[in-house]
Amino acid sequence: MKVVSFGEIMLRLAPEGYLKFLQADHYEATFGGGEANVAVSLANYGIESVFVSKLPKHELGQCALNNLRRYGVDTSNIVRGGERIGIYYLEKGASQRASKVIYDRAHSAIAEATISDFDWDSIFNEVDWFHFTGITPALSCELADICEIACKKAKEKGIKISCDLNYRKKLWSKEEANKTMSKLCQYVDVCIANEEDAADVFGIHADYTNVTSGEIHHESYIDVAKQLHNQFSFSGVAITLRESISASDNNWSAILFDGRKAYHSKQYKLRIVDRVGGGDSFGAGLIYALLNKFDAQETIEYAVAASALKHSIEGDFNHVSIEEISQLVKGDGSGRVQR
Amino acid sequence: MKVVSFGEIMLRLAPEGYLKFLQADHYEATFGGGEANVAVSLANYGIESVFVSKLPKHELGQCALNNLRRYGVDTSNIVRGGERIGIYYLEKGASQRASKVIYDRAHSAIAEATISDFDWDSIFNEVDWFHFTGITPALSCELADICEIACKKAKEKGIKISCDLNYRKKLWSKEEANKTMSKLCQYVDVCIANEEDAADVFGIHADYTNVTSGEIHHESYIDVAKQLHNQFSFSGVAITLRESISASDNNWSAILFDGRKAYHSKQYKLRIVDRVGGGDSFGAGLIYALLNKFDAQETIEYAVAASALKHSIEGDFNHVSIEEISQLVKGDGSGRVQR
Amino acid sequence: MKVVSFGEIMLRLAPEGYLKFLQADHYEATFGGGEANVAVSLANYGIESVFVSKLPKHELGQCALNNLRRYGVDTSNIVRGGERIGIYYLEKGASQRASKVIYDRAHSAIAEATISDFDWDSIFNEVDWFHFTGITPALSCELADICEIACKKAKEKGIKISCDLNYRKKLWSKEEANKTMSKLCQYVDVCIANEEDAADVFGIHADYTNVTSGEIHHESYIDVAKQLHNQFSFSGVAITLRESISASDNNWSAILFDGRKAYHSKQYKLRIVDRVGGGDSFGAGLIYALLNKFDAQETIEYAVAASALKHSIEGDFNHVSIEEISQLVKGDGSGRVQR
Amino acid sequence: MKVVSFGEIMLRLAPEGYLKFLQADHYEATFGGGEANVAVSLANYGIESVFVSKLPKHELGQCALNNLRRYGVDTSNIVRGGERIGIYYLEKGASQRASKVIYDRAHSAIAEATISDFDWDSIFNEVDWFHFTGITPALSCELADICEIACKKAKEKGIKISCDLNYRKKLWSKEEANKTMSKLCQYVDVCIANEEDAADVFGIHADYTNVTSGEIHHESYIDVAKQLHNQFSFSGVAITLRESISASDNNWSAILFDGRKAYHSKQYKLRIVDRVGGGDSFGAGLIYALLNKFDAQETIEYAVAASALKHSIEGDFNHVSIEEISQLVKGDGSGRVQR
Amino acid sequence: MKVVSFGEIMLRLAPEGYLKFLQADHYEATFGGGEANVAVSLANYGIESVFVSKLPKHELGQCALNNLRRYGVDTSNIVRGGERIGIYYLEKGASQRASKVIYDRAHSAIAEATISDFDWDSIFNEVDWFHFTGITPALSCELADICEIACKKAKEKGIKISCDLNYRKKLWSKEEANKTMSKLCQYVDVCIANEEDAADVFGIHADYTNVTSGEIHHESYIDVAKQLHNQFSFSGVAITLRESISASDNNWSAILFDGRKAYHSKQYKLRIVDRVGGGDSFGAGLIYALLNKFDAQETIEYAVAASALKHSIEGDFNHVSIEEISQLVKGDGSGRVQR
Amino acid sequence: MKVVSFGEIMLRLAPEGYLKFLQADHYEATFGGGEANVAVSLANYGIESVFVSKLPKHELGQCALNNLRRYGVDTSNIVRGGERIGIYYLEKGASQRASKVIYDRAHSAIAEATISDFDWDSIFNEVDWFHFTGITPALSCELADICEIACKKAKEKGIKISCDLNYRKKLWSKEEANKTMSKLCQYVDVCIANEEDAADVFGIHADYTNVTSGEIHHESYIDVAKQLHNQFSFSGVAITLRESISASDNNWSAILFDGRKAYHSKQYKLRIVDRVGGGDSFGAGLIYALLNKFDAQETIEYAVAASALKHSIEGDFNHVSIEEISQLVKGDGSGRVQR
Repeated sequence: MKVVSFGEIMLRLAPEGYLKFLQADHYEATFGGGEANVAVSLANYGIESVFVSKLPKHELGQCALNNLRRYGVDTSNIVRGGERIGIYYLEKGASQRASKVIYDRAHSAIAEATISDFDWDSIFNEVDWFHFTGITPALSCELADICEIACKKAKEKGIKISCDLNYRKKLWSKEEANKTMSKLCQYVDVCIANEEDAADVFGIHADYTNVTSGEIHHESYIDVAKQLHNQFSFSGVAITLRESISASDNNWSAILFDGRKAYHSKQYKLRIVDRVGGGDSFGAGLIYALLNKFDAQETIEYAVAASALKHSIEGDFNHVSIEEISQLVKGDGSGRVQR
Repeated sequence: MKVVSFGEIMLRLAPEGYLKFLQADHYEATFGGGEANVAVSLANYGIESVFVSKLPKHELGQCALNNLRRYGVDTSNIVRGGERIGIYYLEKGASQRASKVIYDRAHSAIAEATISDFDWDSIFNEVDWFHFTGITPALSCELADICEIACKKAKEKGIKISCDLNYRKKLWSKEEANKTMSKLCQYVDVCIANEEDAADVFGIHADYTNVTSGEIHHESYIDVAKQLHNQFSFSGVAITLRESISASDNNWSAILFDGRKAYHSKQYKLRIVDRVGGGDSFGAGLIYALLNKFDAQETIEYAVAASALKHSIEGDFNHVSIEEISQLVKGDGSGRVQR
Repeated sequence: MKVVSFGEIMLRLAPEGYLKFLQADHYEATFGGGEANVAVSLANYGIESVFVSKLPKHELGQCALNNLRRYGVDTSNIVRGGERIGIYYLEKGASQRASKVIYDRAHSAIAEATISDFDWDSIFNEVDWFHFTGITPALSCELADICEIACKKAKEKGIKISCDLNYRKKLWSKEEANKTMSKLCQYVDVCIANEEDAADVFGIHADYTNVTSGEIHHESYIDVAKQLHNQFSFSGVAITLRESISASDNNWSAILFDGRKAYHSKQYKLRIVDRVGGGDSFGAGLIYALLNKFDAQETIEYAVAASALKHSIEGDFNHVSIEEISQLVKGDGSGRVQR
Repeated sequence: MKVVSFGEIMLRLAPEGYLKFLQADHYEATFGGGEANVAVSLANYGIESVFVSKLPKHELGQCALNNLRRYGVDTSNIVRGGERIGIYYLEKGASQRASKVIYDRAHSAIAEATISDFDWDSIFNEVDWFHFTGITPALSCELADICEIACKKAKEKGIKISCDLNYRKKLWSKEEANKTMSKLCQYVDVCIANEEDAADVFGIHADYTNVTSGEIHHESYIDVAKQLHNQFSFSGVAITLRESISASDNNWSAILFDGRKAYHSKQYKLRIVDRVGGGDSFGAGLIYALLNKFDAQETIEYAVAASALKHSIEGDFNHVSIEEISQLVKGDGSGRVQR
Repeated sequence: MKVVSFGEIMLRLAPEGYLKFLQADHYEATFGGGEANVAVSLANYGIESVFVSKLPKHELGQCALNNLRRYGVDTSNIVRGGERIGIYYLEKGASQRASKVIYDRAHSAIAEATISDFDWDSIFNEVDWFHFTGITPALSCELADICEIACKKAKEKGIKISCDLNYRKKLWSKEEANKTMSKLCQYVDVCIANEEDAADVFGIHADYTNVTSGEIHHESYIDVAKQLHNQFSFSGVAITLRESISASDNNWSAILFDGRKAYHSKQYKLRIVDRVGGGDSFGAGLIYALLNKFDAQETIEYAVAASALKHSIEGDFNHVSIEEISQLVKGDGSGRVQR
Repeated sequence: MKVVSFGEIMLRLAPEGYLKFLQADHYEATFGGGEANVAVSLANYGIESVFVSKLPKHELGQCALNNLRRYGVDTSNIVRGGERIGIYYLEKGASQRASKVIYDRAHSAIAEATISDFDWDSIFNEVDWFHFTGITPALSCELADICEIACKKAKEKGIKISCDLNYRKKLWSKEEANKTMSKLCQYVDVCIANEEDAADVFGIHADYTNVTSGEIHHESYIDVAKQLHNQFSFSGVAITLRESISASDNNWSAILFDGRKAYHSKQYKLRIVDRVGGGDSFGAGLIYALLNKFDAQETIEYAVAASALKHSIEGDFNHVSIEEISQLVKGDGSGRVQR
């Protein structure tokens, strides 16, 4: 099975431990980005995973590529050129103090990529699944067009398409997002969202929920999923439900609506090591399960278990095997030492 | 608005992470001290913040000064001279294991400072507030005298005075503390204390409370505040109430008595990153709120929120902005990523 | 009082913090092993503590020896020779993600030691107690024989013997363990086990318990202890009871059966820093208390408090003093800063 | 004495030690830039040193400002705004392997600053000296105009002006540099250059010199200095002469032409710790000596000694005192321990 | 062009900086081995580079594989299985103190590999060059046989074979080496050796040379090369000539004998960052130049320049591009900053 | 053979690498002191080495003791008590920049020790050699007295005494040193000095020498040795001769005068990793050689080779074996990798 993910991979610069930006004189340098994170997860699960992007020719571009290659991602379709690699700075929060992200991603190689950079006919050769998120079309108008071209080509070839709405208010307005995503979602089979995306992008709100107070009304999200399904005829809508007790503790679960019925996952009480990439690890678990024709309940349990484990891992990438996920799905979340 | 803080700044040497002294071969070197911590907080909030102390001329004295300067504190009134900078060694606890502090502060430049080192008339030029803690007069008899001189001069000039009782049993006996602090507190407008200070310094005990078992009887602290108020005619008495569940988890709140009425803050459940300086960050929040004429409830909420955030930050200094505090006061303690 | 511990000390290589093996390019290098950990604890408590083992002559063997010596263990009976030092790689888990251990201990100097390497008559000169665990005889047939020789010699000399069952499935089968441990346990006075060992080694199961779901039925472990006692006439059987809520949170307690009555310890809610060596620190606390003729209730409280503190300390060794344990036994688990 | 420096301060990200970009997963984060480096040096020498620039409002902009403030630079004229802070990535070379710099400075706050951002009349209040380098006007056309405005205003106020030619081929072509710098140099009193700048910017070549082979023909640089002097009527021209034996070893000296005569400094054999900022530390030493009316020989010796010491210090900034420079000028380059 | 390298890749554990084993409590963990180092170099030069070996299935085996993959090596022919990955511990020397290596490579997966693990017919599909060193056949008798099988198959397919003699006295005696290498060298086209190998393996000594005193008599090595050529009809013999002045400074050059004439390279004065892998980087440069039909003088210059640069890079792998080598060959060893 | 060394062991705090104090926010924490360094060296050479001192009871005192114990020093005669452990801060120099030491050793436990703390009769039981340096009597008048008591007792018991003059200008004046050392040197058999000590303590100057310019006139030091011998009837006088080319490069040799004849050692060209403790390692090598009755030439060669190696090792302690020294004495200073 072969999956293509398309988007940006950024340099992630984070002070060590819980240091604030104002205290740091060292940064941990890793790489990440919504679609790249999905690509790495899938490679870890044994899927043939192709990441499509554009990176500058200099050594920092090479470092990003090398990190994908290290974890088994096929990087042969990454175009080289452009001026810079996007950066995001991450300050890790704890207790009542929230994590902070400063983006420095404008003018990156991928944000300035052009339609002619990508030959989708060739990229989609013998591919089963295409994944992108709402970040990619938000990077530039040209990229929104490229996403549409890719979606059309994928549809032509009978490739399944998943999209994580992933609304980023610093990249575009809700109106712009609505317009572009409404067009792209026509091609999408599986829609992934968090507890805020549907409201931000499509104005579909959950009742009785206040995300900053940590209260999530699970039932009302089924209604959100149904509305999304009704609007775009998605074959599946998956919504992650994060209850933020603090920056250190979250409750984590999700629902999957398959067009007929809603499935609730188990809820995990997470002690958070690093929550960035949590949604992406969910998406990758979902794609894996769907590609392998797991039933709906099993599918949502795998997606949630994969992402629960991600929260215990430093960096954007989810370095877990499918065996580790299976074990958690089967109920061993005791964290006993594996000798 | 301009605030002067007076006291010692020490080199703080701490093993990395949760290593014990017996395991460490590296120390994290930062700087801190009760009044210096207040000075940095106030500078962060945009107050013109002056720190008065004495530091040796060598590079380590310069490092202490540079660290204050880095965070915006006015260091032009720090006298240079003397032999050494005080040190405190900190071993961070976790779970049932307590943090440990070893002091090596005797013979420091400030502890051996003399009355002629400080020209309070000049220091207090256009100043609105003067802050010190019970640590400063405990360092030497001369310093107790200097504190009294400063207090008198401040009173003369109509400068408000706050004092955090901050009893340190390794610096002086309860009897010595009582004698000196009773004298100094005559000049003090705002008195700050933790759940043990009033008992240690003035023999005023809270009923029904056992701090090592983590039980705090909130109501009885109102009585403590009233007694303090009655004894010294403080315009305000603020007492922090720490419930120590373990070295990793504390409940944190405070009360403010304004001479007529007691105000309770919200209580925060803290996952502790570093609790040293927690009381100082409370004091700084209080001073900020009082300087800005916040009402009593708002005042105690700002002070507690500021110090709740401090517990999530490494080092003595509280590197948060007034915006971050406001957000927590308004109720967002969910720790959701700020993108 | 003088205690001899016999077993393997390994190089422990662990990625920093919560990094997975797949992410690490640095390892923290410490040393540890079931019996070595006990030896270090006892030296910390002021006991004359002798560790007997075999280590290669090269610098890494020397490093292991130096680390024992650093913490006050008598290393004069460590034989030097053989090819390699055993290694274990440790990946620290968090939340739902379990810690992982990869052993690389085959062919170590101690695993290839021979009967003639150890002169027990001389080693046991003026010794009060002999401790080993089920790991040592599992390393090789020759070591099982050496353990038996040592036990016989100890019995001859009136030395008390303790054994921690410590079943390791990667070293031997349950059948092999049963056969060898049944023979050795005839000499043992005090038997130590965790919640799984009795079942793995002797087929004695606790009712109503599922360790991977975190549920422990305390009463049924009294029955396990009684069965162990009945089978081998141990003068004491101590069983640790770990409830694994997650890799970050455990509940920790133990029972002691003295042949007539069972004693339950207090239960601690642990925030885990490093749980490897938790059982060993329990054993050392137990031996200390028994050597000092503490009563049964006090004995089990000291053993559990010692090991509760261990969970807050990095590395295999339990760097706490007997005063720190006493303080926790007396009820101060509040983790308040010790200034 | 008060000196204003004007230019960009960048975040400098460097792998630790001699690691290549391709190996690094940590970066040391410091700050630097040609004019900022001069400003810090001057503050170290006790000069009132003002740095003028523009930095974004976010925490990374604040970090840059804090680092200047930490070392005593007056940052009150740094404008806050714009999108990003410029970055340069530095890979440290050794032996035959050259250091590498990757610039990511386009679109920085200062590069997009406008004329209205700076009120030179106010900035130049009671100022003695104005310093900039060829980097600042190369950042944008607007900045070239701002430099000219500042120069005119400085001349009006009788402020001395120094300019380090500092040609950067990635910022502009030789033709652009020639045109702009020819205009600006009309206002300049003291011109600073390295062994390549005069050729790159003004086409003035030294005979018998091949910088990549490490051969420098000192005499011919006197001729270069004279030509520069003749063209722009500089009151002084100082040229650094670096003989690069390898990335680890350089010979370092300079000449000063005062309009009548050339003065040669001593030559230092450098073991290089970090050579970035070497030229800037030379400029600062020169300005210090000229402000203090040192004679020409002493002036060039101070400038070269200051920069010789810089090569032994990590980071862009030259953390040495004027006493340390004096000692080296006096001839103690033995590096004996100062106890 | 496609090259296959066959051998062991080990975990390399090195104390940081110049720490001795006895001081270290952290190890830098990288990977390396004679043939793996060649494979990485070739991938860096754009050659299709395949590494053949055997690694255990656990995460440490995966880490080794991931590190090769990260740098572009084709790892699809690495067999997974066996018990352990070989380790070498490296203590870096300086000045008069030599670097030390402790091997712990016995019983590694590759050392216990069997003939049936490798299908050379498939591995050698469309391959141009086969490389191994004297280490591989020294690991076990079975591996010596496997090397012979591989050589025969390569010869059959018209694949060029290079062998670096790489004598390791801890792996086999000179007699064993002589016997096995004499057999294997019949198939070899290009023989690579250092200044000691020919004497150790074939008893061919250079006159007038004492390697521990740092004196190398270059002319006599031409004679060694000729004797090697005469004995085995190698089409090329390349010998590296290291003059060890100290652990920090070496002179580095080489000769190439092409069957008719000897070519001397330039000599480099090296300031050593890390000299392990120096010989391997030479071999890779040589293979690259020969594959690209460089003339003999150019070939030896590329090989020596590549390895000169390696000495400035941490770890076994030579992270330089062919452009960096070309630049050094052309004469720019000045180490000037590349901006 | 058993040697007693008496003096102070301090906590040594050093910024990492070549960072200046002004840049550091981490310190490497090791331990050292003139006599402690000798004690560790001797333990490394297999001598029974006893260190006598006083250390506070707290964990930092324990850390110092543990570090000696780790390296095999007998710590059973270290008295526990007093307030603090002395500290020295070390900033490592490079190239023309000198290393800097800031002492913070006043009021240390040993500096405030009293005569009754040490029972020399018991300490000197079965001892062959007693070593101290000029630092110990400089710490306090009481310590000068204690040194005299110890010397007398040693003489009584026929124990050989060595003293390293080790003049420290921050501890006492030349006059005080002269007076006290003149008294103590009456008991001393072997006198050790560096190229400045004889002049500082006894006013005996070498002709034609200027230590800050790096010029040492070797012959005139023979005259210094003779004068020292004539004044105190030392059986041996050893003087180290350091030519400081820069902080990175020194030439290192020594002379030994045995009362009749002077012996010159070989001279080593050192690339310095850490030069602190260089003199102490010389002293230890000398004592070892004299205890083992090496002839005079061999003695001075061992002492110089031991200390040459020390300069390549981080920290005060010289972690080399007698085998490593022998190898260097025999002439292998090539630094070739020891595999």
